[in-house]
Amino acid sequence: MNLKIYKDIKVIAFDADDTLWANETYFRDAEQEFATILSKYQSKIKIDNELFNKEIENLKLYGYGVKGFVLSMLESALEISNYQINQEDIGKILNIGKAMLDKPIKLLDDIELVLQSLQTNYKVILATKGDLLDQERKLEKSGLLKYFHHVEVMSDKKAINYLKLIACLDIKPNELLMIGNSLKSDVLPLIEIGAEAIHIPFHTTWIHEEISELEKSLIDYKTVLNIKEVLTLF
Amino acid sequence: MNLKIYKDIKVIAFDADDTLWANETYFRDAEQEFATILSKYQSKIKIDNELFNKEIENLKLYGYGVKGFVLSMLESALEISNYQINQEDIGKILNIGKAMLDKPIKLLDDIELVLQSLQTNYKVILATKGDLLDQERKLEKSGLLKYFHHVEVMSDKKAINYLKLIACLDIKPNELLMIGNSLKSDVLPLIEIGAEAIHIPFHTTWIHEEISELEKSLIDYKTVLNIKEVLTLF
Repeated sequence: MNLKIYKDIKVIAFDADDTLWANETYFRDAEQEFATILSKYQSKIKIDNELFNKEIENLKLYGYGVKGFVLSMLESALEISNYQINQEDIGKILNIGKAMLDKPIKLLDDIELVLQSLQTNYKVILATKGDLLDQERKLEKSGLLKYFHHVEVMSDKKAINYLKLIACLDIKPNELLMIGNSLKSDVLPLIEIGAEAIHIPFHTTWIHEEISELEKSLIDYKTVLNIKEVLTLF
Repeated sequence: MNLKIYKDIKVIAFDADDTLWANETYFRDAEQEFATILSKYQSKIKIDNELFNKEIENLKLYGYGVKGFVLSMLESALEISNYQINQEDIGKILNIGKAMLDKPIKLLDDIELVLQSLQTNYKVILATKGDLLDQERKLEKSGLLKYFHHVEVMSDKKAINYLKLIACLDIKPNELLMIGNSLKSDVLPLIEIGAEAIHIPFHTTWIHEEISELEKSLIDYKTVLNIKEVLTLF
């Protein structure tokens, strides 16, 4: 039955952050450190909220990734503290960012097994969004580079970006299957353009990547609870 | 004679910043503003020097582009002022970065004419390094997107990066001609891998992009003083 569903697939694209390796947890840890630095000015919940709003406000200008996140933390810190935050704390926030960019890569369970298996029958590619250098560095550190026929770092993951990717791969939309943890970035836009998508939830999701229950109910996609389950679908 | 030199060329790649549009001048202006903010702590020459050293120190972590530049300015500002810089000035430095990301695009003379002419006989592509979102945004603003068959934003422009590009384009090294303003990024690595390169100097060059006279003397490349001259070579 499932073989029939995926009979047209030629290319399988994997998301990277929180699909191949843990990432969002590092952002949560950073937010915790940030809230601790600013704890004398505001409550944790208020700080989280201000920072999130600042990130969204700056998203169009800074895009996704650690560097834009650090710049938004700094701007928020000035505002939350009413320009009282001291210089040492500014230095600490810069260091949170540097530490994030230098984190080791923790592969999620069974990733290598799945990539190895799928690459024998499909062209396997990586399709990730965020900072170019940081994504390349993480891929390099992960040791997974050898499994990918192509690596695409995208500035965003909307339908238009996937259409460009499909044109570049010289395939039709129904020949692409995307696998990832974000319904908003890895599933919804794919269904929109007539491609296939498999959702693998990660335990932590950035609120910006969430979609409404209504949106969920309108799209047809498969959810697996661990990556190994993907192999049973082919 | 020149026709013979370029007889194998199938793909012509253009650098973007300071080849298609002005860019380095905005960094010089930003450095001037930065030095003014810090003028009570150090001389302009010392500030420039500290900032440059910080940028190079952070290059491996932050890569090229405005966001990393702003993060390096902030770190330098703390150090140059011995952690005395006030919070309003931290805010000013953040705003220098935001203004840089929002600058209008000033095309250099005759760019459109040259792209239009070359695309009739060659596959014309863009090969630029820096921040993915920022480069895409500048290209969009420039109105030049329609002339490019492919756009490659690279994390660096070393021989290895160009070899990947050549593999992706499915051509041989001698079938690629690169045109750009940086000897270090747009000429030297191309000659190294057996591709062709044309150098078009821009009036301002970041010191990190300069190469030694010895290196210059060892490579064979063509220099043109304005982009229109390129058309006389085909």
